[in-house]
Amino acid sequence: MFTSQSKIRVRYAETDQMGVVYHSHYFQYFEVARAEAIRELGFTYADMERTGVIMPVIEVQCRYLRPALYDDLLTVKVILKELPLHHKIEFHQEVYNEKAELLVTGRVVLYFMEAKTMKRTTMPEKLQEKLQPFFR
Amino acid sequence: MFTSQSKIRVRYAETDQMGVVYHSHYFQYFEVARAEAIRELGFTYADMERTGVIMPVIEVQCRYLRPALYDDLLTVKVILKELPLHHKIEFHQEVYNEKAELLVTGRVVLYFMEAKTMKRTTMPEKLQEKLQPFFR
Amino acid sequence: MFTSQSKIRVRYAETDQMGVVYHSHYFQYFEVARAEAIRELGFTYADMERTGVIMPVIEVQCRYLRPALYDDLLTVKVILKELPLHHKIEFHQEVYNEKAELLVTGRVVLYFMEAKTMKRTTMPEKLQEKLQPFFR
Amino acid sequence: MFTSQSKIRVRYAETDQMGVVYHSHYFQYFEVARAEAIRELGFTYADMERTGVIMPVIEVQCRYLRPALYDDLLTVKVILKELPLHHKIEFHQEVYNEKAELLVTGRVVLYFMEAKTMKRTTMPEKLQEKLQPFFR
Repeated sequence: MFTSQSKIRVRYAETDQMGVVYHSHYFQYFEVARAEAIRELGFTYADMERTGVIMPVIEVQCRYLRPALYDDLLTVKVILKELPLHHKIEFHQEVYNEKAELLVTGRVVLYFMEAKTMKRTTMPEKLQEKLQPFFR
Repeated sequence: MFTSQSKIRVRYAETDQMGVVYHSHYFQYFEVARAEAIRELGFTYADMERTGVIMPVIEVQCRYLRPALYDDLLTVKVILKELPLHHKIEFHQEVYNEKAELLVTGRVVLYFMEAKTMKRTTMPEKLQEKLQPFFR
Repeated sequence: MFTSQSKIRVRYAETDQMGVVYHSHYFQYFEVARAEAIRELGFTYADMERTGVIMPVIEVQCRYLRPALYDDLLTVKVILKELPLHHKIEFHQEVYNEKAELLVTGRVVLYFMEAKTMKRTTMPEKLQEKLQPFFR
Repeated sequence: MFTSQSKIRVRYAETDQMGVVYHSHYFQYFEVARAEAIRELGFTYADMERTGVIMPVIEVQCRYLRPALYDDLLTVKVILKELPLHHKIEFHQEVYNEKAELLVTGRVVLYFMEAKTMKRTTMPEKLQEKLQPFFR
């Protein structure tokens, strides 16, 4: 299993008139945390795109347990339970506030695709090598 | 069953550098379509909030089949399969492009809650009356 | 002078915890209204991009007189006071609510640029022909 | 003069199909940087709102010199040239990329207002005390 976590501070623009973070913004938090997770591995998603591999989101799910508030310093977790063998990768994600309360759980499925052909491909070898030690 | 559909034109700001609508924005489209569905019933979500009942989103799910592009005129469907008896309401949602291709399917679960007490409540009677004829 | 106006309904996600539209979102409304203005002329900004001409925003300004609220049906005006001779085009924009109160005034300057070379260019002839009758 | 700077990493959702940060998002970066500037002073904007003083944005301006790209680690500067005497405060803002290139300059004017009455007020004393040493 590979896990990673990032800190994200809630912006004013992300709140709505209920006084809480608008529900769709968590998917942006999830993405930031995935990008940071890849960076921790000594790689970046931006680099991957420059080599012609993109990762469109294919499916998402999210449960909202407690609201996040303006200026909260959130901890956003990324959990990769299985090393993907094919074109599909599935992340579990969790958001906690500063009191360590679980606010949100999510699941994001992405594909590895060649930008040029828009055909499915596999995880770039370089990233695979970095991830393998976590799955032994 | 109650169904409704709205037209939403994709904004430039909603695209990302993949040249397609960023995945989280569909939840905003879903909400716009739900608001229009309620308006068709002669009621508005804004009115409901003014009477003290809010509808926080509790769970969402979304599958991305085909991308939506800048300036596409999308058709966003709202499908209510069951009249909610308690505090919970579940919408199915679909997004189509101008070629009538299904781009995205989603599911959004919301609760009826009293804004003051943040306790669960039931659908306002006025809205219930409007919806009942669709479920006979 | 060329003027055009569009209707835009305020989305829930566009409000913030002050209960009003977050200030930066008006620039998205401005853009929607500009795109609709071009469409009225029998042309689309999307088409222009497909022919290789893009219009990056170079400068913006905005004054906020009164807040827009959730579900408000706004009227967003586009005013082109001068036909651009070179690479630069300047739009004035205004936002009104349903009571015809002026909420926001803005100014947006864009350049015509060739996407490939990122060099400044002039307005596509086709659009120029459509606009000229308004400036005689 | 009081100055402060924050680091903000560009999110994928903030890019558009031109492959650069969409122009309106800089106003969110500006706000994050202002909030961090206040935090450096041992105070938070969130606290200020809890004491009943809000700061709606009254006017903004922005010039776009160079684009910011996905995953860029931006430096966002806040410059307060004058200590506000009345209800109005004006910030100058600048955005730099990792090569120290100036990308964007902006100006944001806000009012101090009492949330309850929506009347103009002055800067909370506590914040004034923190800022005064920078203006001697």
